[in-house]
Amino acid sequence: MIVILKENPEESQLNSLIAWLETQRIHVHPTVGANQTILGLVGDTSRVDMDMISSLDIVEAVKRVQEPFKNVNRKFHPDDTVIRIGDTEIGGKELTIIAGTGMLESREQLFAVAEAAKKSGVSFLRGSVFGPRSSPYSYQGMRVEGIRLLLEARETFGIPVISEIMDASQLPLFEDIDILQVGSRNMQNYSLLKALGKTDKTVLLKRNMSATYEDLLMSAEYLLAGGNRNVILCERGIRTFETHTRSTIDISAVPVLKQLSHLPVLVDPGDAVGRASLVPPIAQAAVAAGADGVVVQVHGDAGQAGSGSAQAVTPSTLTGLTEKLNKLKAVLA
Amino acid sequence: MIVILKENPEESQLNSLIAWLETQRIHVHPTVGANQTILGLVGDTSRVDMDMISSLDIVEAVKRVQEPFKNVNRKFHPDDTVIRIGDTEIGGKELTIIAGTGMLESREQLFAVAEAAKKSGVSFLRGSVFGPRSSPYSYQGMRVEGIRLLLEARETFGIPVISEIMDASQLPLFEDIDILQVGSRNMQNYSLLKALGKTDKTVLLKRNMSATYEDLLMSAEYLLAGGNRNVILCERGIRTFETHTRSTIDISAVPVLKQLSHLPVLVDPGDAVGRASLVPPIAQAAVAAGADGVVVQVHGDAGQAGSGSAQAVTPSTLTGLTEKLNKLKAVLA
Amino acid sequence: MIVILKENPEESQLNSLIAWLETQRIHVHPTVGANQTILGLVGDTSRVDMDMISSLDIVEAVKRVQEPFKNVNRKFHPDDTVIRIGDTEIGGKELTIIAGTGMLESREQLFAVAEAAKKSGVSFLRGSVFGPRSSPYSYQGMRVEGIRLLLEARETFGIPVISEIMDASQLPLFEDIDILQVGSRNMQNYSLLKALGKTDKTVLLKRNMSATYEDLLMSAEYLLAGGNRNVILCERGIRTFETHTRSTIDISAVPVLKQLSHLPVLVDPGDAVGRASLVPPIAQAAVAAGADGVVVQVHGDAGQAGSGSAQAVTPSTLTGLTEKLNKLKAVLA
Amino acid sequence: MIVILKENPEESQLNSLIAWLETQRIHVHPTVGANQTILGLVGDTSRVDMDMISSLDIVEAVKRVQEPFKNVNRKFHPDDTVIRIGDTEIGGKELTIIAGTGMLESREQLFAVAEAAKKSGVSFLRGSVFGPRSSPYSYQGMRVEGIRLLLEARETFGIPVISEIMDASQLPLFEDIDILQVGSRNMQNYSLLKALGKTDKTVLLKRNMSATYEDLLMSAEYLLAGGNRNVILCERGIRTFETHTRSTIDISAVPVLKQLSHLPVLVDPGDAVGRASLVPPIAQAAVAAGADGVVVQVHGDAGQAGSGSAQAVTPSTLTGLTEKLNKLKAVLA
Repeated sequence: MIVILKENPEESQLNSLIAWLETQRIHVHPTVGANQTILGLVGDTSRVDMDMISSLDIVEAVKRVQEPFKNVNRKFHPDDTVIRIGDTEIGGKELTIIAGTGMLESREQLFAVAEAAKKSGVSFLRGSVFGPRSSPYSYQGMRVEGIRLLLEARETFGIPVISEIMDASQLPLFEDIDILQVGSRNMQNYSLLKALGKTDKTVLLKRNMSATYEDLLMSAEYLLAGGNRNVILCERGIRTFETHTRSTIDISAVPVLKQLSHLPVLVDPGDAVGRASLVPPIAQAAVAAGADGVVVQVHGDAGQAGSGSAQAVTPSTLTGLTEKLNKLKAVLA
Repeated sequence: MIVILKENPEESQLNSLIAWLETQRIHVHPTVGANQTILGLVGDTSRVDMDMISSLDIVEAVKRVQEPFKNVNRKFHPDDTVIRIGDTEIGGKELTIIAGTGMLESREQLFAVAEAAKKSGVSFLRGSVFGPRSSPYSYQGMRVEGIRLLLEARETFGIPVISEIMDASQLPLFEDIDILQVGSRNMQNYSLLKALGKTDKTVLLKRNMSATYEDLLMSAEYLLAGGNRNVILCERGIRTFETHTRSTIDISAVPVLKQLSHLPVLVDPGDAVGRASLVPPIAQAAVAAGADGVVVQVHGDAGQAGSGSAQAVTPSTLTGLTEKLNKLKAVLA
Repeated sequence: MIVILKENPEESQLNSLIAWLETQRIHVHPTVGANQTILGLVGDTSRVDMDMISSLDIVEAVKRVQEPFKNVNRKFHPDDTVIRIGDTEIGGKELTIIAGTGMLESREQLFAVAEAAKKSGVSFLRGSVFGPRSSPYSYQGMRVEGIRLLLEARETFGIPVISEIMDASQLPLFEDIDILQVGSRNMQNYSLLKALGKTDKTVLLKRNMSATYEDLLMSAEYLLAGGNRNVILCERGIRTFETHTRSTIDISAVPVLKQLSHLPVLVDPGDAVGRASLVPPIAQAAVAAGADGVVVQVHGDAGQAGSGSAQAVTPSTLTGLTEKLNKLKAVLA
Repeated sequence: MIVILKENPEESQLNSLIAWLETQRIHVHPTVGANQTILGLVGDTSRVDMDMISSLDIVEAVKRVQEPFKNVNRKFHPDDTVIRIGDTEIGGKELTIIAGTGMLESREQLFAVAEAAKKSGVSFLRGSVFGPRSSPYSYQGMRVEGIRLLLEARETFGIPVISEIMDASQLPLFEDIDILQVGSRNMQNYSLLKALGKTDKTVLLKRNMSATYEDLLMSAEYLLAGGNRNVILCERGIRTFETHTRSTIDISAVPVLKQLSHLPVLVDPGDAVGRASLVPPIAQAAVAAGADGVVVQVHGDAGQAGSGSAQAVTPSTLTGLTEKLNKLKAVLA
């Protein structure tokens, strides 16, 4: 950590700062320039409160040199994390493809998607049963009945399942679900993160639309600090000024997160861009950038009014896309 | 709602869409142009799922004409909402000034801030006792002991208190707290919003850093739809590319939210910009733009290393600022 | 175009608006709802000033239905534009790879990059000779001498060349340059665009960091409206809150621009992200998303202090990357 | 400047870097930590190329400590710059109010605005005569005839005038214009900035929608480095995800720019938000935040279809607003 002092700092305040830092077991190396004095802080600065130091009268700015995350940091854990669920590995040599229904609405819809998923050889089946919906007047989900349907589909098709948890109090309901999704709006719901950190459930953590890479990694750090190492990161678009797409997929997130962390990284193109015609090119880009897999929404009942959402692809698009993604992965190997 | 069709839409699909809309009690008025056909949808479109319609093959785009929020909408409730707590009114003729400690750390700190607040005549005293902290390694708060201290300070100084709730399960702890803050990271924690909607506690709802005005109002709508009308909106900065300040205060939020909604609007300058020297000019701007009040963090123990955060002002700054804000309010009346 | 009227619009003003629109040869179709009246405008609305209409007392909002761009619009020109320069095609079946020096500094540097480019089989050689530099104290470029060196390199290596023009007055200097780049900071320098629109020079138009897709296409429209159809669009990153990378590459720009327009689309990964280690994954993502090619900066003298910029890759990285990009293109065909 | 080295940097490369820096008259102070070595660079680092250093193999990151701007920097020129034009001062004790027509369309329009300006006691009259227009099909301005009308209005009403210059080649036409506006799209048109830097014309430099404070100040630095000290900064909104307003006014720009620089700072609310009803509250906020003045568009012919733009206020609003702004300024003094 670097502390940049104002010109002519008052000496007693400077000494008090240095003394206080040393009680925190931080060693201070000053660099005195003509106009500016800089303090280099050496030691475990991850617990030093930058805001606190920058609030001092004598301090102009504080800059962090080391990342504040540890357990998720590739520097300290160079090997890729590979998560095993049944016969499947996430973060290993194979692509992970998750096919989902969006909001789960009926047995017919779920089973149609599951059948398409089975045919295309995808790894996981997703359905949302508790929302989240931005309007209180929208359909709020099948709830417990939806969880039951997911488990029935797993039984029938032999594909492990994933669903979004909204609140720590729902944990018992998700006991048999294979992967628990934490949605982008809950990425900094620390009560939920702390509760999940105490389990060993695999968690798919979606990036909030205004989260920096560091914010996302700090939320993952909450999970790992609690003892749960089964964490998957998921890029799903950030808020920018461009409104042609629902949000802007940040494809650089893939190689950057893989550099900074050892955790697997997936991409959800449909959530990011909100229209089916863009899902294949973005999914291809994600794999070409090094993603461990993608999430794709699939129509349960294509072509019917009221049967899906703007981002869902048809079963035949899913099949073609899955093939192409596997070929891309092979070329990159 | 406007539905823009693709060129030469297939007629059977078009008829099926129109029939389906009419079962939703929506009347459809088509406008046929040379290149483009547009459907005008008339009726209660707030429950129509835009995504669903825009996913149809024959649809190019869907645009909403009416706002999706109702209970918070000024069109349907033209009079300002005024919330009474003890002798104080929020959203009425007087400015509401909330003085806070940031993270509550000790009785000394809280009582020093409370004394400064009392002297300056501010309306509410705030202290955070459960976080939120972006790092799991940061101090996580005084918890129940903090709640107790807030109530003691209220007793001693006669100032009502506000604190941030993180989770629906904490509701019993906040029973005696006057205003419950929902932080920006929880603005779309729908489990929490639904639980608060069923109470009559006054809620200060902070805008998420990537929330549009509509997003914020839809979260407020969750509270009002549940039956709770005691809601205060709070602008606290949005995420932009400018990094000189922690986030960018969106001062237009004040007049826009006052136009769109009848709810009181406060501004938290310190949270937005993260440095004490900018708090007075931004607080002044907020009041000049029509805000019903501001939130200001105050040093409990100015000048000591480790005693505060970068955004906290001194007690004497608070006194001068409060005077100036009241003068500005008088000029604008 | 859709005009949404306020409740109970004054009738004389409404009639005056309709009459005025009809003098512009626009037909008006009203849809009268319970709370809201909507006017559907049919005809050539690309010349109607939205701002003007939305300023009227009786108007609540104006929404555009048709795109305001015509010559660049794929709807009116469904076939891809393919630009031929010597033996090379841009926008056709082969990838276009441009290898560049960044700021051109010396003959040695340029010739080292040109040699690497030749070996890797890239299509064009780029060097900047007039800046742009954000600081007046930075090196401002080799200017005319740089243009001369580029032409010498073309002669020696047989690779056509590209360089950035800053101002219409420089046009004579660029007479023999194969492609003229308009940098992102000049994307809305309309004096420059108008001057280039009157030539038949191939123009590489880079997206400004705050330009929407529509803004970029409207700037291209200036060129085509002037008569110049040899225009290449180039995505180079947009400004977002994420600061780990210099800007955020918007990979969706590739499929969206290809859908909206018939012009070729390139991507400049290095400019966007500002670090060499991210150039290969982003370039791969660009091609996988359907880009017609990429721009890559190459070190003239790797490993020497002062010899390059943070985003330049080594010659051997260029060779490996070019091979991989061609393989990806083949898989996608 | 701080250079953060990678772990275990190769010693010969490190020595070569230090030697090279010392030839640039930069002294290097290393701080050696357990995991990390940091170099503190002391001397005139404003000419050191950060990108060049960060491209080295042994370097992890480079952080600037000193601002790269000098002539515009308040640290080196603590006193406010006050610009005198006729009897008027910009940046002094009085507010500067500029009333404008937007796009100048006719003598009647200009003279109506000039009369309103005269009555309200505003300082300057603005009219745009060369665009800029984002569409090549929009009206491109009155050009030379517009310049002539502005000079006639100045003669008639005794109010100095301001207009937007698009290109260095237009300088002769602007010889008698009092203030030359550089629009936000040209903020980094360095050819134009260099040309204006060689004159002594007063320049109103508008912030680009994606420019950081530093970017804006570096563009101003181009003007001052050329010798022209008569520069006014103008905030006019940045691009964010919020689309309810045309752009987002960044009110913090006012106090931050006043802290960082000695130049006067104006705000253009209408350009930022694009709707007249928001102009008064934002203008009030600007003055309350410490702005030296505001720019306000005024209707030349209110209420007529085709007579103005969405952001123009009526003459009577201008009068009321001017009074209120002067009262606010008095309260703040």
